Amino acid sequence: MHVIDYDVLNGYVDEKNFSMLRTELIGLNKVDIAEFLGKLERDIMIRVFRILPKDISAEVFSHLESEDQGDIISSITDTEIKKLIDDLFLDDMVDLVEEVPANLVTRILRNATPETRKLINTYLSYPEESAGSIMTNEMVELHDRLTVKEAINHIRKTGIDKETIYTCYCIDNGRHLIGTVDFADLVFNKSDALIRDIMDEDKQLVYVNTLDDQEKVADIAKKYDLLAVPVVDNEKRLVGMVTIDDIIDIIEEETTEDFEKMAALLPSEDVYLKTPVHILVKNRIGWLLILMISATLTGFIIQSFEDMLAVITGLTAAIPIITGTGGNAGNQSSTLAIRSLALGEIELKDWFKVLFKEIRVAVACGAILGIVNFARMQIMGSAGSMLVYLTVSLAMFFAVVMAKMIGCLLPMLAKLVKIDPAVIAGPVISTLVDSLSLLVYFVIARAFLI
Amino acid sequence: MHVIDYDVLNGYVDEKNFSMLRTELIGLNKVDIAEFLGKLERDIMIRVFRILPKDISAEVFSHLESEDQGDIISSITDTEIKKLIDDLFLDDMVDLVEEVPANLVTRILRNATPETRKLINTYLSYPEESAGSIMTNEMVELHDRLTVKEAINHIRKTGIDKETIYTCYCIDNGRHLIGTVDFADLVFNKSDALIRDIMDEDKQLVYVNTLDDQEKVADIAKKYDLLAVPVVDNEKRLVGMVTIDDIIDIIEEETTEDFEKMAALLPSEDVYLKTPVHILVKNRIGWLLILMISATLTGFIIQSFEDMLAVITGLTAAIPIITGTGGNAGNQSSTLAIRSLALGEIELKDWFKVLFKEIRVAVACGAILGIVNFARMQIMGSAGSMLVYLTVSLAMFFAVVMAKMIGCLLPMLAKLVKIDPAVIAGPVISTLVDSLSLLVYFVIARAFLI
Repeated sequence: MHVIDYDVLNGYVDEKNFSMLRTELIGLNKVDIAEFLGKLERDIMIRVFRILPKDISAEVFSHLESEDQGDIISSITDTEIKKLIDDLFLDDMVDLVEEVPANLVTRILRNATPETRKLINTYLSYPEESAGSIMTNEMVELHDRLTVKEAINHIRKTGIDKETIYTCYCIDNGRHLIGTVDFADLVFNKSDALIRDIMDEDKQLVYVNTLDDQEKVADIAKKYDLLAVPVVDNEKRLVGMVTIDDIIDIIEEETTEDFEKMAALLPSEDVYLKTPVHILVKNRIGWLLILMISATLTGFIIQSFEDMLAVITGLTAAIPIITGTGGNAGNQSSTLAIRSLALGEIELKDWFKVLFKEIRVAVACGAILGIVNFARMQIMGSAGSMLVYLTVSLAMFFAVVMAKMIGCLLPMLAKLVKIDPAVIAGPVISTLVDSLSLLVYFVIARAFLI
Repeated sequence: MHVIDYDVLNGYVDEKNFSMLRTELIGLNKVDIAEFLGKLERDIMIRVFRILPKDISAEVFSHLESEDQGDIISSITDTEIKKLIDDLFLDDMVDLVEEVPANLVTRILRNATPETRKLINTYLSYPEESAGSIMTNEMVELHDRLTVKEAINHIRKTGIDKETIYTCYCIDNGRHLIGTVDFADLVFNKSDALIRDIMDEDKQLVYVNTLDDQEKVADIAKKYDLLAVPVVDNEKRLVGMVTIDDIIDIIEEETTEDFEKMAALLPSEDVYLKTPVHILVKNRIGWLLILMISATLTGFIIQSFEDMLAVITGLTAAIPIITGTGGNAGNQSSTLAIRSLALGEIELKDWFKVLFKEIRVAVACGAILGIVNFARMQIMGSAGSMLVYLTVSLAMFFAVVMAKMIGCLLPMLAKLVKIDPAVIAGPVISTLVDSLSLLVYFVIARAFLI
């Protein structure tokens, strides 16, 4: 792997030897240049950015974090802004306008061409996380009547400004999407072949609507191994595309959201270290309060059995072991169900298959856990009689079976009523399982021991 | 989006009208054909597969699940196997050989050319989840002395068998990787330009070693927005590449692994519905047993305070509320830490920044939770005196602060000692937080109430 000698680069910065720094930077990958810039002090960063050759500065800019982008925009001249906007891809422009403060947005839009301004406003009007809001309009469009040779010439002339030339979209006179053609197919076909004869059409044509959720864009790209997904309007006119690098970002974003929801956090797109404390508190306190208050239920259950607990030695000590084991067992099932739903490995109609499988798994796991627990209590000489040991072990068995049933069913039920399964998963299930495990435990104890 | 009329297709299957079925299938996307095949009965599936035109059957085959692939291999003739192997990409071949039963592997290898056989054996000898084990050798290699025109002609002739032509790798006489060139750069450059003059080289060159973990391959592809990552041996000779579609699979696989580990499951690559019950039990029971037995610790803590609990009304009922809230608070922090580590948003050297931030968040959350809890107990008229309410609220505050500190530090500590943070996360932290919350609670209670 290439190694970047930050000491050398920082040395030039310290010496203010910007011409040597420039020479050194030009040889680097644009991603690495952006990473280097991101680590500099604000003023130095802006100064170094401005000495970059114009042909790479837009790409470097697009890899910077939005905070640094804002700093640069607010410090460069209108002419420089014009040039930068001109070189940025439209989707990066839209990202920029979404992230920077309002006064900078005004400045950016003032320096954009009327066309670009109109386009940006259109993109901003699409719902958040929709295909329309993340697409770019810089795709290769080919009329279906062109020959391969004409198409390649067209791409040679116009392709340099496109975000990718590897997937080309075929349109008719009304700009309707009627097919796609891989650049490779252009290369491998005879130069007088017609685009319409070599394109994938009809039942092979894969696309999304501007209003479709970004998750659908990612699912389609994954399923069909696409490098770009075309976006059409309600009349099936081609309006944009989403490229694979953005699709990977979507996949990561959606996964992070699932992780956060399962951990009872409000989803956030902010980078952890740059998020202020009060925002972090805001993202966390809501669920913590809801769960704390709903845990009152477990308190009530214990309270109503308090007399029994005070009388029979050993019962209280086993409470966290039973609720903990139930919680862990349920968590396993709900995580598998949520992940399998997200990956499309199970569907709602499979609910009985899943339930039946989980019950068998639960009976096996519950039996093993119950037996081992009985042995554990004997070996450790836990407080309480043999009958208490038996009660705890039996309660553990039922808690595990119940937890796994709830764990697999609840995410599917959530999906059925259009709630995100991940929200239901961690937090809600664990509170429910806690209460039910306790109830099962105390009911068995009362039947056996009183 | 294209809609596939399964009723029509199934109608042809029922009528055994295979010629119409064939005509209908040819028009479809190969991914959809594979999906359709996957839903048929074994014998019908094999029969339909065999009527597919030879030029699409290999690609359809590569999209089938390994079980169906095995069924097909075991039912077709040696000649058909030879043809199929010939048309499959090498990485799909390696996947196949890894998944099907041993007797089929013998049959496949017997029908492969000696060269392919040797290659497969080499790939199988790389460690699991290494770059070497997932790469393909079907990449475009260009000598750096070629002109653009010669390069394009070379790709026209040989590219049809390559997995992608969009990223080309430049090599010297010793087959060392010395640069990469995008196909687009070939298109946009003059035909007499030399490859060596237009390639990205040196400090821009991004590659991995055969022994690098697949996670590194994915990280690099994401960071540099690559469509393919080249793989080299210890002498920096080009031996393979990993393409973006496989990289997306790696990202999903690694994420699923993290989900599973955090839910105290052994990671498994099997599809849920196709995994036998005893395997599911095996993947789950280990952690459940370990956690159940380590929860004994909480049992001990309760046991040693049992006299106090029996005497002071209201203390026992609050146990699950305090451990639950502590668990939820810790879970939030550990999930954020694990995900941020996985995405590279925080590094080990940031530990103090993270800790400091978490402490401030924890103090705010803990204070709010404590106060609301106090109000809750009063409003609900919970059992116990005002002093019990105060004890519970104070314990909740400290439990939250402690849980969040453990939650953010433990994943980083795990990473430091090269344990996967995700393994430590869910299960281990919750057991630890349970015990410590209880201890804090009882110590405060003893100080205040006895």
